[in-house]
Amino acid sequence: MKSELRTVLFLLLAFIYIETSAQNQPVDYVNPFIGTSNFGTTNPGPIAVRGMANVSPFNVAGPQNLPLEKDSRWLSTPYIQENTFLTGFSHVNLSGVGCPELGVILAMPTTGELETDHLKYGSTYSEEKATVGYYSNKIDKYHIKVEATATTRTGVSKYHFPAGKSNILLNLGLGLTNEEGAMVKVVSPTEIEGVRSVGSFCYYKPDEAYPVYFVARFSKPADEFGVWKKPRKYNGVEAQWFLKNGKARIKKGHTKEIIGDSIGAYMRYDFDKPSVVEMKIGVSYVSIENARENLEKETSTRTFDQILAESKETWNTYLSRIEVEGGTDDDKRIFYTALYHSLIHPNTLNDYNGEYPKMKTRETLKTEGTRYTTFSFWDTYRNLHQLMSLVYPKQQSDMVKSMLQIYDESGWLPKWELNATETTTMVGDPAGVIIADTYLKGIRDFDVEKAYKAMRKSATQLDNNPLRPGIQDYINKGYLTTKTTKSGSVSTTQEYNVTDFAIAQLAKELGKKSDYKMFSKRAISYRKLFSKEFNLLRPKNDDGSWLTPYNPEAGANFVKNLGFIEGNAWQYTFMVTHDVKGLMKLMGGHRAFSNRLQDVFNKNQFDMANEPDISYPFLFNYVKGQEYKTGEKVSELLKKHFKNTPDGLPGNDDTGTMSTWAVFSMMGIYPVSPAEDKYALFSPVFDKVTIHLDSAYYTNDKIEIVKVAKSKNSNTIRSVKADNQSHPKFFISHKKLTNTDFLNIYIE
Amino acid sequence: MKSELRTVLFLLLAFIYIETSAQNQPVDYVNPFIGTSNFGTTNPGPIAVRGMANVSPFNVAGPQNLPLEKDSRWLSTPYIQENTFLTGFSHVNLSGVGCPELGVILAMPTTGELETDHLKYGSTYSEEKATVGYYSNKIDKYHIKVEATATTRTGVSKYHFPAGKSNILLNLGLGLTNEEGAMVKVVSPTEIEGVRSVGSFCYYKPDEAYPVYFVARFSKPADEFGVWKKPRKYNGVEAQWFLKNGKARIKKGHTKEIIGDSIGAYMRYDFDKPSVVEMKIGVSYVSIENARENLEKETSTRTFDQILAESKETWNTYLSRIEVEGGTDDDKRIFYTALYHSLIHPNTLNDYNGEYPKMKTRETLKTEGTRYTTFSFWDTYRNLHQLMSLVYPKQQSDMVKSMLQIYDESGWLPKWELNATETTTMVGDPAGVIIADTYLKGIRDFDVEKAYKAMRKSATQLDNNPLRPGIQDYINKGYLTTKTTKSGSVSTTQEYNVTDFAIAQLAKELGKKSDYKMFSKRAISYRKLFSKEFNLLRPKNDDGSWLTPYNPEAGANFVKNLGFIEGNAWQYTFMVTHDVKGLMKLMGGHRAFSNRLQDVFNKNQFDMANEPDISYPFLFNYVKGQEYKTGEKVSELLKKHFKNTPDGLPGNDDTGTMSTWAVFSMMGIYPVSPAEDKYALFSPVFDKVTIHLDSAYYTNDKIEIVKVAKSKNSNTIRSVKADNQSHPKFFISHKKLTNTDFLNIYIE
Repeated sequence: MKSELRTVLFLLLAFIYIETSAQNQPVDYVNPFIGTSNFGTTNPGPIAVRGMANVSPFNVAGPQNLPLEKDSRWLSTPYIQENTFLTGFSHVNLSGVGCPELGVILAMPTTGELETDHLKYGSTYSEEKATVGYYSNKIDKYHIKVEATATTRTGVSKYHFPAGKSNILLNLGLGLTNEEGAMVKVVSPTEIEGVRSVGSFCYYKPDEAYPVYFVARFSKPADEFGVWKKPRKYNGVEAQWFLKNGKARIKKGHTKEIIGDSIGAYMRYDFDKPSVVEMKIGVSYVSIENARENLEKETSTRTFDQILAESKETWNTYLSRIEVEGGTDDDKRIFYTALYHSLIHPNTLNDYNGEYPKMKTRETLKTEGTRYTTFSFWDTYRNLHQLMSLVYPKQQSDMVKSMLQIYDESGWLPKWELNATETTTMVGDPAGVIIADTYLKGIRDFDVEKAYKAMRKSATQLDNNPLRPGIQDYINKGYLTTKTTKSGSVSTTQEYNVTDFAIAQLAKELGKKSDYKMFSKRAISYRKLFSKEFNLLRPKNDDGSWLTPYNPEAGANFVKNLGFIEGNAWQYTFMVTHDVKGLMKLMGGHRAFSNRLQDVFNKNQFDMANEPDISYPFLFNYVKGQEYKTGEKVSELLKKHFKNTPDGLPGNDDTGTMSTWAVFSMMGIYPVSPAEDKYALFSPVFDKVTIHLDSAYYTNDKIEIVKVAKSKNSNTIRSVKADNQSHPKFFISHKKLTNTDFLNIYIE
Repeated sequence: MKSELRTVLFLLLAFIYIETSAQNQPVDYVNPFIGTSNFGTTNPGPIAVRGMANVSPFNVAGPQNLPLEKDSRWLSTPYIQENTFLTGFSHVNLSGVGCPELGVILAMPTTGELETDHLKYGSTYSEEKATVGYYSNKIDKYHIKVEATATTRTGVSKYHFPAGKSNILLNLGLGLTNEEGAMVKVVSPTEIEGVRSVGSFCYYKPDEAYPVYFVARFSKPADEFGVWKKPRKYNGVEAQWFLKNGKARIKKGHTKEIIGDSIGAYMRYDFDKPSVVEMKIGVSYVSIENARENLEKETSTRTFDQILAESKETWNTYLSRIEVEGGTDDDKRIFYTALYHSLIHPNTLNDYNGEYPKMKTRETLKTEGTRYTTFSFWDTYRNLHQLMSLVYPKQQSDMVKSMLQIYDESGWLPKWELNATETTTMVGDPAGVIIADTYLKGIRDFDVEKAYKAMRKSATQLDNNPLRPGIQDYINKGYLTTKTTKSGSVSTTQEYNVTDFAIAQLAKELGKKSDYKMFSKRAISYRKLFSKEFNLLRPKNDDGSWLTPYNPEAGANFVKNLGFIEGNAWQYTFMVTHDVKGLMKLMGGHRAFSNRLQDVFNKNQFDMANEPDISYPFLFNYVKGQEYKTGEKVSELLKKHFKNTPDGLPGNDDTGTMSTWAVFSMMGIYPVSPAEDKYALFSPVFDKVTIHLDSAYYTNDKIEIVKVAKSKNSNTIRSVKADNQSHPKFFISHKKLTNTDFLNIYIE
């Protein structure tokens, strides 16, 4: 019955899809190549909404790909648009990150004799195509057409082989990073299972490496199968005796585990005519059994084409939560691709059966909802979760619940959690901001008291506090000093301020008055680091003196400096959006503030690719008479950095943060201050944006943002009406926005 | 009920053991240190009769053990008596072999802080003791007393820790060879499971490396546990970024698999008083599940002391199949230790449930009887199987059945089979000799027609014949030439002759007359290589000319030479025991033969450590009037080479072949010509030897060999009586021997 229902549903969906595709659905505007160049570090491979599996073409290994070769430089993506030498398709990947990790379980179809060295079996490719949930190319050397799609936890490939001898290689030695160690076993002529060690994100915390499990199933039984191992080369006397020293060993027909650093398995076919083999690879972070169950439950007996159609339909359902009208075709492509990128990470960690690994010790636990992972909170606390709260509140709720699971398991909220490991990369303590923002926006189906306790813990525990290094100086002096940390004393102080502001807001809402007072006071301690001399923030030494000599420009382009992480004083000073009025006062009033802000742009200190800056353009909304500049800057930045091209992202997508900036910016609203109930309003790109609201969380079923523009090329906001009532300011609260049917933004 | 019965049985056995131990049972005479020096390559660790598991102290790693360090030279044993630096206890080991293999699953108890580098945690040791099924020492550095025992598939250790912090390390990185790759997982605070890759016996056929599985259980739950991994050191730019580059990573509390070349797991305790932890490690060549079942079924809830008592009792049952009287205490120790060594290999491959890996592909198969492995047939065809047929015929029958399983699985009989891989080391095609000898001795409960077909296949298949390289020349010319092979053309010809003789004998028994004729003719083709000039065998060239110049001494001490494998002309010429009369004729009669044989000894060309020579001393029995020399030589060789000391074996025990030589020699009977129903008779060491016969194969229940000696120091055999009837010759057939109650050997 169930499978009958499924078939009916499938046919129905397929019908709807075909029926409507003529009109160009949101899904049709996604261009998965955006961000695959200019260090965007996205990949064009198919992935389900917040999928665990992703089939990415892998073209970063081998001298053929220099200078963008994975071992020759810091490189954090399995695919780069400019590269040409393909060595397979990796089945677990990160999207838009700045650190190398995953990029493993590499499958590669070849023809002719068995060759297991990727430098030899690799090939150029052509006829590349990518749409939502679909990727295809032709491997030149072998004349094999490859197509790929994916479910949440399964990568599905379709290999079109010519007649003759063909191979499907599963290379567990090759990967994006140099983390090594794998086990693989051929279970039958149609199944391979295995484990691969991954970890050491950012070349950091190798101790927390962990396994990813997989099961690969093949639609045609292999005529021959086997495994291989390339062992380390022996030295000394043993090298003289050892035959095949350092050479790959092929073990034809072997049915037991093979284990080692450089190993793989193969299926081999001898086709008398051109033939198609479909391969499904289920993955899991819990066990091989779960990988198998994920594969079976998610793909059942469905074909590649059925799975692809379902994937597209699901994506379309998600993307259609926001409908846009007007704008160019490229605008729509940029918008929906950005929205697509915001739906990749955080991604699903739990298996189909709900099981997922516990933080650190990796015991098997079970979740009710989705356990999300890949929490790059230093990035995403600034806008991505705000987008989720508005458009996908159920997801945001599950993300908060996942954060609380992590707290239960490890004693601490996450900072940069990845597959049940805490990478503790970047600075600050951003989890609290996300939780407060979510709760204050009315998404409250989680244990807020527990959440508050967890936030408060990292804000107050003085010893052995992994989330807030330097907390003692922060509390005693109000800031970290050049003695507290060699890197980013000012920016870390600012991050703690932002979180303390968020805690204060939540404390207020929960009636915790003394906490509200305490954290509100703490939240503005950055003021002590404001230098009148430079009219910018400036590091202080342990004795309270200013860091001298001081060059506020130092620190741009990721150069390490004492005061700021990944930035300089220009790029951080305005990152106090919770205290804009305070900063204005420090700077000498509205005009001084607005001039200094304009200086950032004039002096070319604004870095679109760097999170601390991304709210800067919207700060003009705080200055009466200067609001028009917001629209101007946003329009300019969108045009310059966000394009319908592979280099169409300003840099790392930062797990969707950059893309989310574009999504909000193109809609004319931006959540300018995290944990503050406030969107900046400015000129949207589109004539009309319809945001469908989730009835489980909101009473209104949609918001329509309408641009009423006198001139086509103007960005100058003049006035706003909400449901035809005049709206006094160029900010709107979340509550008012979500209770508004029509938000008219008037542009001259 | 079952466990009650078991307890009763145990108490009964313990009682019997205590009761009888006062009288010194066979088991009490075994000295497991014999053969642990002088390259005997036995180890003193406990092992069950033909056990798969063996807990050997491992003292061959680290510069502290130079010059006998495992990586600095060819070294094939986990333990050497002279060495002093212990780095653990390995749980699968080979005994008495000349090639490095196994020596893995290393456990080591330590105290204090966790240290995972064996060069740092290793220690000297003292108070070493070893008896059958038992080994004990004290690890100096940690003041830990270690005791060990074993069941067939489980190593059992007892660690006596002092108060304080203690660790039990399972190091899967370290091993006797450099074969690498392992997976380990802590299942619970009392259980660890894992897989280790082994293989590359003799640094050969690395392609056929295979996994050994294990489960370790601990009597006390660990207070802390974890795994570690020491990854490869990164080079290039990545080395700059990578924290802890090349350093061991400790993963405390980790409960998922860790995989890699250099990994391990640990259990950690904090004892408030001196405490004992018992550890059981079950092993399997099929799966982790089977390793667990092996452990559970074989040890159940029994304690170390119960398992030890059972092990000793089982050993005693086996060893008591031969009882000796007279002789010195050392004679008994040498004898029973030799018998003990003959019961180690071949060893059990199948799991408790009967499962074992298929040859090469390692699919799981199931056996009814025992599937034996470690078939070093080039060694053991000469005497060990003959001892088995006489004293342990059920084991010999199962060994033949195992050979036929291997034939069924791989298409060929084994040559040097090891854990379901065919190492194809050494020369010749010895399986047929063993099968024929077994059948002709009346052990016939196997499919002889299949066996004959298999033997005939390797003797006749001209192409792609892995067992008889050079077969075309052998059949066409009667011998291999210096062109056929660069190493051992003469000795290989001799080996094929011996096997063809065996096939002929079996053909005759099975009524295959034309085969009998053909193989009988083939069996004496070595004669074509007899050089009148040298009165020895000599290699021939492809054109039939003699190899010139020719130095018959070349080739001693394992120096490679064209004619002979591991030997020279002196050491091979008499290895035609199936054609002694023919050789006599070639040499010019009885006297010339006997003089030439004496020359071997006089010229110091006899090598007790080398198999081709080991029947030489008994050949004097073929020369009327010279028979006394057999007893003389045997006595002299026993005294010189077989001692109750660590260097008490002449060299590699060769999976019991050397020890079996001693067993037969000390009993006064020797199976001088394989597949020929003939024991040479000479002076036994003991006054009386009682061989108990297996009623399933023999009608008599025992044979008593009685030495009737006039003078204490004489070895000169004068006459023999069988059941008080005069026996005309100094040979006796197997049939007559096993039907004789009393064999009196008269010595003057």
